[in-house]
Amino acid sequence: MSTLENRQFKLISRPVGLVRRSDFEFATVPVGEPGAGEALVRVQYISLDPAMRGWMNEGKSYIEPVGLGEVMRALGLGRVVASNDASLSVGDTVTGLTGVQDYAIAKAGAWTKIDPSLAPLPRYLGVLGMPGLTAYFGLLDIGQPQEGDTVVVSGAAGAVGAVVGQIAKIKGCRVVGIAGGPDKCSYLVDELGFDAAIDYKSEDVLQSLKEHCKSGINIYFDNVGGEILDFALMLLARKARVVICGAISQYNNTAPPQGPSYYLSLLMNSARMEGFVVFNYAARYAEGIAALAGWLMQGKLKAREDVVEGLETFPESLLKLFSGENFGKLVLKVSDEDI
Amino acid sequence: MSTLENRQFKLISRPVGLVRRSDFEFATVPVGEPGAGEALVRVQYISLDPAMRGWMNEGKSYIEPVGLGEVMRALGLGRVVASNDASLSVGDTVTGLTGVQDYAIAKAGAWTKIDPSLAPLPRYLGVLGMPGLTAYFGLLDIGQPQEGDTVVVSGAAGAVGAVVGQIAKIKGCRVVGIAGGPDKCSYLVDELGFDAAIDYKSEDVLQSLKEHCKSGINIYFDNVGGEILDFALMLLARKARVVICGAISQYNNTAPPQGPSYYLSLLMNSARMEGFVVFNYAARYAEGIAALAGWLMQGKLKAREDVVEGLETFPESLLKLFSGENFGKLVLKVSDEDI
Repeated sequence: MSTLENRQFKLISRPVGLVRRSDFEFATVPVGEPGAGEALVRVQYISLDPAMRGWMNEGKSYIEPVGLGEVMRALGLGRVVASNDASLSVGDTVTGLTGVQDYAIAKAGAWTKIDPSLAPLPRYLGVLGMPGLTAYFGLLDIGQPQEGDTVVVSGAAGAVGAVVGQIAKIKGCRVVGIAGGPDKCSYLVDELGFDAAIDYKSEDVLQSLKEHCKSGINIYFDNVGGEILDFALMLLARKARVVICGAISQYNNTAPPQGPSYYLSLLMNSARMEGFVVFNYAARYAEGIAALAGWLMQGKLKAREDVVEGLETFPESLLKLFSGENFGKLVLKVSDEDI
Repeated sequence: MSTLENRQFKLISRPVGLVRRSDFEFATVPVGEPGAGEALVRVQYISLDPAMRGWMNEGKSYIEPVGLGEVMRALGLGRVVASNDASLSVGDTVTGLTGVQDYAIAKAGAWTKIDPSLAPLPRYLGVLGMPGLTAYFGLLDIGQPQEGDTVVVSGAAGAVGAVVGQIAKIKGCRVVGIAGGPDKCSYLVDELGFDAAIDYKSEDVLQSLKEHCKSGINIYFDNVGGEILDFALMLLARKARVVICGAISQYNNTAPPQGPSYYLSLLMNSARMEGFVVFNYAARYAEGIAALAGWLMQGKLKAREDVVEGLETFPESLLKLFSGENFGKLVLKVSDEDI
């Protein structure tokens, strides 16, 4: 094994604003040997997520920041190529925290086996992975949708937003998505069945929200922050729920984020704004995956992935999330599926 | 009756920034005759509340704004001097929406009888009135204190804050109050039993909060908004609850309020920020009053009122709330108790 090479992106400086290639060292090291109880995985796909930007920052958060000099943290999936634990065999396909590299070693218990025959591999990093679970628990547990509710979701064509909107439809809600560009907007309405879509790049978002939410917003599922959060706050219905899932418009700010000026709408409408991270629900992942897989098979849930090729493109590929260039769950292909 | 005169403050323009006397017409009109089922009340005390500032603004809120030309809305109490309903007798003491005037007429059902022998009259507008109920339901229902929680309350020497802190102590929490000036701070600690008090006029509030909340803040009960809300957000514990009761620092802004820049702390800590108004709990007022009165009698709850004399001082007296000049529940005495 030791003759194999492992390319890896190590974080060497904390980005200021947008991530730059120079924030990483792209090193090639020999592949290590798995220790007792560990398995070595050839990485095939890496998930590119907005949250990764937060992991690069110093300071307290829901998870430790990536240390300087450490391989950049990432969720991914791949095939077991060596195993020192009875629970995993060579050839198994697994997901886990691979990091941004070609090969990853971890305790067998840190890997989750998946069945590659049931869905295209990148889907396990999207609707059948953390983004799908984030949508599932965030909408159902924090948002608590009721039939007939008006649900607004930002980043609606993104990995989380598209699933949020579709689950809200399954639960009998009216769903309005906010996304960038006519292609994403027609995708939301024509393919995913949203009731309306607002193109934030060309429309007056506040005005369009007023038109589409005449009785106010019962649930606002926020992936973007910034002024769109304020617009939603202005239009809350009584007892509304604002689910704070992310704030992609704010992650690259060098100043503290723009706070929601209209937060007193929470008082005026006896409304609630609540944050969460999917890791809170680790004990219920199986429930979420079962529900999502069931809806997929029934055709009630559609998924789309945007696959970029080449580990070496990592810093630039990640930036697509922040420019809104990706269309569907952004995934980095690291190696062929038939390795 | 018609020879009696009724002085009243009518709202004639919507204030910009701080309330001015010129926003009102101070008129003297003949006292009206109560109609069928109505009672006429001689007003004795009027409650001066931060929320009154909001009622003067145009636009959607939890309650209709006061109309231009209408008597300024206010809670108050007084004695029945004429009644056309069997449920009320001349001499009864009642609370209700008196408005800022000497005499008020309303349907008998809109008045609530109180027993003037059980507590000083102004107390029925404080701890035994809306501020007490606001504290009770806001802390217990929205904040959901658990024994051992660290509870921070701003406006802590105010009508609501002082009760919030004392109920939190009754529930076994550690309580840190934020108030203005050494007198109020020593009152909180020495008389009300708070664990600590922070003088926002002389201390670095963030630094002091860090010192007094080493394990983070489990409940932040906000009466003030502004930067203090942000400081609290920075220090939230996991699963914290931020109760949005008011934002007195923002009510006189002519621009939209300062939004909480650190709202993403809700995400990082899986925390919740929720607003409410006491009117949501109308069906449970009796429960709240019974609990508050019980704690008062047991000496577990202390109350303090700041009584200003003279209906004619209304606009200037109201401003004391915003300058922080009042010490205790601010009440306007309109007429003698032995009328």
